[in-house]
Amino acid sequence: MADAEVGKPVLGPDGNPTSKKALKKQQKEAEKAAKKAQRKAELDAEQQANQQEDVSKEFYGDMKMIQSTEKLDRALVRVGDIGLKEADQLLWCRARLHTSRATGKQCFVVLRQQQFTIQGLLAVGENISKQMVKFCANVTKESIVDVQGFVRKVDTKIESCTQQDVELHIKQIFVVSKSAPQLPLQIEDASRPEPEGEEDDGRARVNQDTRLDNRILDLRTTTKQAIFRLQAGVCRLFRNTLTERGFVEIHTPKIISAASEGGANVFTVSYFKSNAFLAQSPQLYKQMAIAADFEKVFTVGAVFRAEDSNTHRHLTEFVGLDLEMAFKYHYHEVLQTIGDVFVSIFKGLRDECQTEISTVGKQYPAEPFKFLDPALILEYKEGVKMLAEAGVEMDEEEDLSTPNEKLLGRLVREKYDTDFYILDKFPLAVRPFYTMPDPKDSKWSNSYDMFMRGEEILSGAQRIHDPEFLTERAKHHGIDLNQIKSYIDSFRYGCPPHGGGGIGMERVTMLYLGLHNIRSSSLFPRDPKRVTP
Amino acid sequence: MADAEVGKPVLGPDGNPTSKKALKKQQKEAEKAAKKAQRKAELDAEQQANQQEDVSKEFYGDMKMIQSTEKLDRALVRVGDIGLKEADQLLWCRARLHTSRATGKQCFVVLRQQQFTIQGLLAVGENISKQMVKFCANVTKESIVDVQGFVRKVDTKIESCTQQDVELHIKQIFVVSKSAPQLPLQIEDASRPEPEGEEDDGRARVNQDTRLDNRILDLRTTTKQAIFRLQAGVCRLFRNTLTERGFVEIHTPKIISAASEGGANVFTVSYFKSNAFLAQSPQLYKQMAIAADFEKVFTVGAVFRAEDSNTHRHLTEFVGLDLEMAFKYHYHEVLQTIGDVFVSIFKGLRDECQTEISTVGKQYPAEPFKFLDPALILEYKEGVKMLAEAGVEMDEEEDLSTPNEKLLGRLVREKYDTDFYILDKFPLAVRPFYTMPDPKDSKWSNSYDMFMRGEEILSGAQRIHDPEFLTERAKHHGIDLNQIKSYIDSFRYGCPPHGGGGIGMERVTMLYLGLHNIRSSSLFPRDPKRVTP
Repeated sequence: MADAEVGKPVLGPDGNPTSKKALKKQQKEAEKAAKKAQRKAELDAEQQANQQEDVSKEFYGDMKMIQSTEKLDRALVRVGDIGLKEADQLLWCRARLHTSRATGKQCFVVLRQQQFTIQGLLAVGENISKQMVKFCANVTKESIVDVQGFVRKVDTKIESCTQQDVELHIKQIFVVSKSAPQLPLQIEDASRPEPEGEEDDGRARVNQDTRLDNRILDLRTTTKQAIFRLQAGVCRLFRNTLTERGFVEIHTPKIISAASEGGANVFTVSYFKSNAFLAQSPQLYKQMAIAADFEKVFTVGAVFRAEDSNTHRHLTEFVGLDLEMAFKYHYHEVLQTIGDVFVSIFKGLRDECQTEISTVGKQYPAEPFKFLDPALILEYKEGVKMLAEAGVEMDEEEDLSTPNEKLLGRLVREKYDTDFYILDKFPLAVRPFYTMPDPKDSKWSNSYDMFMRGEEILSGAQRIHDPEFLTERAKHHGIDLNQIKSYIDSFRYGCPPHGGGGIGMERVTMLYLGLHNIRSSSLFPRDPKRVTP
Repeated sequence: MADAEVGKPVLGPDGNPTSKKALKKQQKEAEKAAKKAQRKAELDAEQQANQQEDVSKEFYGDMKMIQSTEKLDRALVRVGDIGLKEADQLLWCRARLHTSRATGKQCFVVLRQQQFTIQGLLAVGENISKQMVKFCANVTKESIVDVQGFVRKVDTKIESCTQQDVELHIKQIFVVSKSAPQLPLQIEDASRPEPEGEEDDGRARVNQDTRLDNRILDLRTTTKQAIFRLQAGVCRLFRNTLTERGFVEIHTPKIISAASEGGANVFTVSYFKSNAFLAQSPQLYKQMAIAADFEKVFTVGAVFRAEDSNTHRHLTEFVGLDLEMAFKYHYHEVLQTIGDVFVSIFKGLRDECQTEISTVGKQYPAEPFKFLDPALILEYKEGVKMLAEAGVEMDEEEDLSTPNEKLLGRLVREKYDTDFYILDKFPLAVRPFYTMPDPKDSKWSNSYDMFMRGEEILSGAQRIHDPEFLTERAKHHGIDLNQIKSYIDSFRYGCPPHGGGGIGMERVTMLYLGLHNIRSSSLFPRDPKRVTP
């Protein structure tokens, strides 16, 4: 069918010139038919080409689902390991197709493996067919591919990739696992910088709920990869430091028969024909381990708080890094140990996690975390005094409010140049019944909190180890003695003086990195409104 | 009042000799009165002595409750560190009074600190008063004492203590924390050897419920101290081995919105105005971590099974050592990694926990744990064949019963001389829907169990990473697709082939040491009948 001649009067089926409108319609139809014909011709040619002359047909395609059919002996080089020293080598790697951009005879891709990216390039040529380039251009983003290519040095650094000195000239590409074409969020959007309080620059970002609903995509961002690698470091350093100091790791039950810290904020579990509760802290069990002669113990595990708090720093389930130790004569032995543990964690993160820290900093800019060695210890009343000097009116025996806590953090940083400090000797009135009062003035207590960037991350104390005195203090607090009988009884067969504390793992990660929300440092966060995924 | 003269007729109040019976009664009363008088005289003398001439009164007594009044700079030497090289040194230690035996002017004590014991001796002399010896003899067992003494070499080894070459000549003794005089169980009874299946020798032992009801005392036995120190080693070796191999530690939620492994055996939690469940395994979350590019992950944490099983090896809450990893082309990469992890744990325990192993062996004698390096791998059908040769009739596609599991363990030990082995390629029919079928014969599957002393301690498999195939298999199993939608959706955006497994921590400890009951290796065990202490 010949093309319709534009501008020439067109005759109707009856041989007469048609109306202007009809003419236009006819013209359009003709154009459409022409386009269709062209597409068909192209497709035919392509098909023919596919059948007859795809020189690359062995070198690309969808791989059969890997079902462990054979033990293929192929080295897969890690993207993060490809650099100048691999230049001109032909190698295989497995990565996600992060982005792709096709321009006729060429296709540029960015391949991503965890926090590392490299540019790949495919151009029609002697061994690369048009079809292969097209196939590559059509691979859906986030699909996993096995790619073989030559590593080639580039003249200009590739700013958009972590591997900036080289690119991969692709020889083979196979899809190992295909992604759905529509992604509920774009990895690039989820990775954009989010400075605190800064104005919106209009670029697409991903809100929290979309992130959390599609957590497996959100977690693929280099930022999240770095956050959770650093968090693994926090746990490792916590445990190693304590193990070196003779602490024994224990595991305490999560299902308990009575609410551990009073009746409030506890989740109830159906336990066969009865009810039980989820432990709000391992504290009582840590103390029993001390009464049972383990002397120094730590435990890492889930703790549960049925608190209807929807804030940036509350979760209903989080990971507690807990420790408890017998001491000789003064609870400062405990306080100093915990201070040392923190210093050791901070040093370890600084020395071992520099890559992670700077990766996270790109999305969430924050001042580097500052600490002193040994850690700064202030008394509660000194803190109150500093606040008073800054214009805050509060009673010495009053607890710190969240804004005052924050403010004190800033004042301490200005004065002592540290983001971590210990506040010792809290007012007795604001602490639980099992807290040991100060021996000289029972207005105060042998208890302490520790802070990072002005937020509490540990609460601890010398515990009362004498059953009679413990009973007296429980009565004073109006606590039902029947509810805590077995707790008090734990101290009846001799118990050394002891103390300890509990650290919120997600808070340490959040505050160390200067993140804005604890949901960024919980792998699958739980809050009053969320128990999925 | 004078003593009654025995054998001489006694006159009644009326002056007449009394009846024989009355006489006897009178005699007894007189004796009683005499004894009372004697006791009074002794007490008077003692009191006088106490007041006037207690040369040791500064050197013993009840210490005031340690409330951190002062930072006493006193080195406390550990009992386990006192030996011949400390001979003739004067030192302080803090320990429990394990036992005491007073003989007039002497008092022998055994002091215990964790798994170590030393003999102490106190004899009336120039600087040691009668009163001091008596005080020491009256200190209740299990009280914690600060003791100062000279270390003295002994001529004959003290067989009943761990420190056999020396004893402590006590100069000062103060009670730090007093135990109640009546103990619900005796540490010595709780420590007596309990060979499996051996006949009762009539000596007092402590039954399981008494042990568990009074767990803090039971845990003080050297056996339990050793068991839980070794268990800490299992966890440490598991984590260190995996960290060295590039695995990242993660923490998965325990509160979940849908039962993770089908609806059965799951605990329900009241979650604000709704219901949630306790995770029966971290498996789905480990897999999501793989889909989220963490590549190799492990997690240590509580898992919950609402199973009404009251056996020696079931708990309703236990600690899972879980791992999951992406592999390149064959799930044997995973299988071998897990095998290596076990070998590394066994080597580590052998090299680092010899003291603990032999301590536990005294109470629970067991053959040393044998393993091969690399681990033995058998195919399921080989196992079935070995059982058939031993006279067991079972279908190839049938699951292993507990007795057959045990028997196969014995057969494998006889043939291959190992207490650990891997059984690979289980029948597909007996595995969960997400298990990858064998590529050549779908009667089999890419799944495996691992065994210690003939009991299963790990179950694992290649998981199906293709969402369409996973859907097909779920349908085949009659599973409600709505219930597992989010699980299947996790694989829609590209997921590498992967596999893993979950290890029961308490089972590993129990079976490695050859214990008889899993309650011995759970610090505060939970079963259908017990949620306390």
